[in-house]
Amino acid sequence: MSGKQQLRLGAFMRPVSIHTAWWRYPGAWPDANFNFRHIARLAQTLERGKFDAFFMADHLAVLNMPMNALKRSATTTSFDPLTLLPALAVVTERLGLIATASTTFDEPYHVARRFASLDHISNGRAGWNLVTTSNPDAARNFGLEEHVEHAARYAKAREFYDVVTGLWDSWADDAFIRDVENGVYFDPERMHVLNHKGPHFSVRGPLNVARPVQGWPVIVQAGASEAGRQIAAETAEMVFAAGGPIAEARRFYADVKGRAAALGRNPDHLKILPGALVVVAGTVAEARRKRDLLDSLVHPDSGIASLSIALGCDASAFDLDGPLPDIPETNQSKSGRQRVIDRARRENLTVRQLAQIAGGYGGLSFTGTPQTIADEMEEWLLTGACDGFNVMFPYVPGGLDDFVDMVVPELQRRGLFRTEYEGRTLRENLGLPRPANRFFPDR
Amino acid sequence: MSGKQQLRLGAFMRPVSIHTAWWRYPGAWPDANFNFRHIARLAQTLERGKFDAFFMADHLAVLNMPMNALKRSATTTSFDPLTLLPALAVVTERLGLIATASTTFDEPYHVARRFASLDHISNGRAGWNLVTTSNPDAARNFGLEEHVEHAARYAKAREFYDVVTGLWDSWADDAFIRDVENGVYFDPERMHVLNHKGPHFSVRGPLNVARPVQGWPVIVQAGASEAGRQIAAETAEMVFAAGGPIAEARRFYADVKGRAAALGRNPDHLKILPGALVVVAGTVAEARRKRDLLDSLVHPDSGIASLSIALGCDASAFDLDGPLPDIPETNQSKSGRQRVIDRARRENLTVRQLAQIAGGYGGLSFTGTPQTIADEMEEWLLTGACDGFNVMFPYVPGGLDDFVDMVVPELQRRGLFRTEYEGRTLRENLGLPRPANRFFPDR
Repeated sequence: MSGKQQLRLGAFMRPVSIHTAWWRYPGAWPDANFNFRHIARLAQTLERGKFDAFFMADHLAVLNMPMNALKRSATTTSFDPLTLLPALAVVTERLGLIATASTTFDEPYHVARRFASLDHISNGRAGWNLVTTSNPDAARNFGLEEHVEHAARYAKAREFYDVVTGLWDSWADDAFIRDVENGVYFDPERMHVLNHKGPHFSVRGPLNVARPVQGWPVIVQAGASEAGRQIAAETAEMVFAAGGPIAEARRFYADVKGRAAALGRNPDHLKILPGALVVVAGTVAEARRKRDLLDSLVHPDSGIASLSIALGCDASAFDLDGPLPDIPETNQSKSGRQRVIDRARRENLTVRQLAQIAGGYGGLSFTGTPQTIADEMEEWLLTGACDGFNVMFPYVPGGLDDFVDMVVPELQRRGLFRTEYEGRTLRENLGLPRPANRFFPDR
Repeated sequence: MSGKQQLRLGAFMRPVSIHTAWWRYPGAWPDANFNFRHIARLAQTLERGKFDAFFMADHLAVLNMPMNALKRSATTTSFDPLTLLPALAVVTERLGLIATASTTFDEPYHVARRFASLDHISNGRAGWNLVTTSNPDAARNFGLEEHVEHAARYAKAREFYDVVTGLWDSWADDAFIRDVENGVYFDPERMHVLNHKGPHFSVRGPLNVARPVQGWPVIVQAGASEAGRQIAAETAEMVFAAGGPIAEARRFYADVKGRAAALGRNPDHLKILPGALVVVAGTVAEARRKRDLLDSLVHPDSGIASLSIALGCDASAFDLDGPLPDIPETNQSKSGRQRVIDRARRENLTVRQLAQIAGGYGGLSFTGTPQTIADEMEEWLLTGACDGFNVMFPYVPGGLDDFVDMVVPELQRRGLFRTEYEGRTLRENLGLPRPANRFFPDR
């Protein structure tokens, strides 16, 4: 292995493509977002490409967008992440498996138990994407009329994390001795009762699952607001970052790593992976034609709806050919909205242009040949903008196959990406340490 | 296939054996309750034996029993059922997969979504064992100091069921048209927004998963109290019944089927399967020796603890050689306690004897040759005591292998049990109809 800095590659797989028109692309599997055989085949291809992880975002609702846009969405039916990933664990051997779970609409005992179970079933490949769930439609599926306020969600999330990691430490690694002769299954000295009592949660413990193979599944986060950055610096081991201009990415990278260092953490133990839509072809012109074809398949109704979601307010009443009006503060995810507003002002875009971008994915995108894409990725990696990428594919299976067959070999040729997995667990492959057990520091 | 009445066979697999000493039996895999490769091999053997389903009971806690007993328990570490079963779906093709989920400590949107996902991933083999969770230790892992009262749990469970089945009906079977040319993914006329508002739950919907392959996963229940029988008659398609004397089982069978008929249901669409521990050998004497050896491996500390759990009160203070004292009413599962009390009175047993029975499994058990066991099962089936059994194995893998290799062929020879699966889904194999969609009765 080269001594060069190494790229980490996650694959953004729920939905199987971020681009709203992916399912209409020639050769796409239109049902791939909800077909287990297809998804299993995609996961196996990612493993052939030595990807670090399969990453599942999540929504706890059918998004409440206007029907003229909703009916065009390929994500209205999707698997529950923690039900899909155990099945994918059986058809893969090294690929990391990162599922999203909400600290606002689930219980820490359930979350600790399910991720610990997945980590054991996958032999140490689980990751938890900790989200506070900013979508107000989810609240209405869980008995709340009003969504939980931003700061309150983050305070609850922090305590949720403490409880979950505390439950994962319920047992020393050597607790289960299974002494058949004397009939002693575990050593009572190696079990810890958490007895957590905090402002949001009261959880006795211990967890009824042995300590995860990885100690803890890898902690992943995606928040980019002030509160999101701080909880990431305190707790995350991987951050799924927004793309955006490289200068902005470098500021984000320096900020979050700096916060982690200030807290006494090793910044290398927090990997920052922006999402990036990658469209590859043999020539730059051909890659641009592919991207243009994909964008042309976005229906205008979908564009306005995507823009409304990004802004957290209804954009259908805006003047299509005017500039973006002032957008009121809402209780939604703050970082996504601000990116759209900043770009609109910076590039002087009309609402119509913004809608087209939002419907077709307006975030970071690399479109070109394996060489130009590797050049860009290398620049990002070597200039302090990221530790790798959460790759988004333009469609499946073709867009994913192309990445694995064209871009991965070029990255490997440059010594920027592994040719074999370094280890068996997600932590080993990401170069993350196994957390010590706070209650049994000797093990 | 013979026209004879057919036995249904479930396999009780969490824990992998009900007998507390199973893991100490010669040849047992002591870690089988928490080893995915072992459990996968057991599931595949059950499928070779044409079992209807793999059944996972559950506890949402490490049971709060005295440490001298707890440390001997092989169930302190167990997989979350809904994390294990998707993985088992990949290594089997026809075996039904029944997971327990609690209506007291989970959310209907999560439960609907996870079981719907499992049903799609397994191509129609999911079942939901709906429990109200009587164990007070679970409450303390979910923020409650006091356990929820019995009647309140059942009222909430009934509404929970209505919400979950309503969410499963969110989409007509033909909703997802995926019209690539026109960019229409689903037909808006074929989506229903539930908008449920009841005393316990407020859930908007629709579910973000297509209607399950089976319409609804099979509904399973295990309650035997008055409230438990009534909700089973109203909603269950399989009842995991207590064993006990055959006369009592016949009364239970007639009662629950009668309640279902009185509600206008076809009683054949509610299958009653008592749990039965089956120990088989070439001779009756050898089978009895196996059972005696197994019982001899129960540590006395485990026996008293098991008795305490069954009674819902601490039995360690009772006079070991005296009769069972009067037991106060508690908030626990009523039916289990009453069975112990009835048996103590009927057979004039001391506390010591009851402890030995409780620790070694005091419920229905068949011990003998394939012929004597088939005789007993046939009598139960043909005299209105059951529709089949949830088979409990004395240990694994040997006790399970023996059942599949010795008892199943004898049942098949008599025409009482299938030699091939009748269908692809759990419903088809159990002879249960696919529920109509309440919102789209045409499909």
